[in-house]
Amino acid sequence: MAEKNLGVPVLGVLGGMGPLASAQFMLRLTLLTPAERDQDHIPAVLWSNPRVPDRTAARLAGGEDPLPALLRGIRGLEAAGAGAIAIPCNTAHGWFEGMQAATALPILHIVDAAEAELLRLGVTPGPIGLMGTAGTLAMRLYQERLEPRGWTCLVPEPAEMDRLVSPGIAEVKANRVAEAHGPLAEAARALVARGARAVVLGCTEIPLGIAAGPALPFPVCDTIDALARAALHWAGK
Amino acid sequence: MAEKNLGVPVLGVLGGMGPLASAQFMLRLTLLTPAERDQDHIPAVLWSNPRVPDRTAARLAGGEDPLPALLRGIRGLEAAGAGAIAIPCNTAHGWFEGMQAATALPILHIVDAAEAELLRLGVTPGPIGLMGTAGTLAMRLYQERLEPRGWTCLVPEPAEMDRLVSPGIAEVKANRVAEAHGPLAEAARALVARGARAVVLGCTEIPLGIAAGPALPFPVCDTIDALARAALHWAGK
Repeated sequence: MAEKNLGVPVLGVLGGMGPLASAQFMLRLTLLTPAERDQDHIPAVLWSNPRVPDRTAARLAGGEDPLPALLRGIRGLEAAGAGAIAIPCNTAHGWFEGMQAATALPILHIVDAAEAELLRLGVTPGPIGLMGTAGTLAMRLYQERLEPRGWTCLVPEPAEMDRLVSPGIAEVKANRVAEAHGPLAEAARALVARGARAVVLGCTEIPLGIAAGPALPFPVCDTIDALARAALHWAGK
Repeated sequence: MAEKNLGVPVLGVLGGMGPLASAQFMLRLTLLTPAERDQDHIPAVLWSNPRVPDRTAARLAGGEDPLPALLRGIRGLEAAGAGAIAIPCNTAHGWFEGMQAATALPILHIVDAAEAELLRLGVTPGPIGLMGTAGTLAMRLYQERLEPRGWTCLVPEPAEMDRLVSPGIAEVKANRVAEAHGPLAEAARALVARGARAVVLGCTEIPLGIAAGPALPFPVCDTIDALARAALHWAGK
């Protein structure tokens, strides 16, 4: 509807996973757009459903399957006239094939967006650090897509996941962004100490925690920004 | 659809006016929610259409009527299953009656939300400063709703509008948030010097500019936060 009526592409955003990350995605999408006035920005519909069953619990602990809730969101975005779909949640990409098979709209893959962002930052294929939810790491979302292209992914040790990364992500989801910085930054530094030349913040909560403290002294790939740039590229901006 | 399927109220957000303000609204809505995990947050659908014709130009300069585009957005939010509508744009409330007459969904009025926020800040009825677009001031959106309740609104002089407020708003719409702080803060201080006990930032671009510099030493009513609190109240949070 919107696309036909507005005469311009409408971006569909399947969000709420978590809600702060998708709000930040909308903010960064706007700030990264070359614009002088409201009318220069791209139309978008954000379907923010924080009630989608937890993706990591579904993959690792037999929790409720999130696919039906994801598909319901895609139906809503189709009805709203979206011309493409962006999903600012890395772990949800574990259901990418199921989602893409269920819609004719292109879904922008966040791992491809992250790779483009690495290249934009001047990082060429080779060893990189990868932070993400336990679900994203267990599904090898990045490894399977990027390793055939020459990247190798160093990931946190299980003890670092339990002590630093998973608690840091949970702090952001509970709106305690400042408290998330310390553990997430420590995990990123550990990956660089082990040979990573850049670190992919492969969970959209992580850039929020990382940004809540001093900048890190090595390249980080913010997957919120990466996906926003991919969406602007799709929209011809 | 979503409301029935999700079993909880879905907030509809008619946004894009401007897009940065509505993204900030989504961010503040999330941060103001008492939550420990994604699933504690409220579902929302943001219809962000930055192509809605300029509200101030429509009111003051015979520009294109925004009502058809606003109603198209309301139809989209109805189709998405929204249970109420929030519009993070003060000037668009000049078309409030036309929008409310066209939908059975309750539209949360931003001026009522601003009044509740003033009271929450401890500001009782009396003289307040009011900043807004030239359209909002010309339509007397705040005065007609608040003066019968004992508030009196001091507004910037026409020269201050031309030199400070309107350029500050335009800077935010062009993503130059830091540059907006100086002129907007100067206009707020001038209202307090003339007797205002608090200043209503009655255009959703203004809080973004004001937040980009040092805090002001008097109460300010951020209409993004005010509307987010009204929405959370509606959702029972």
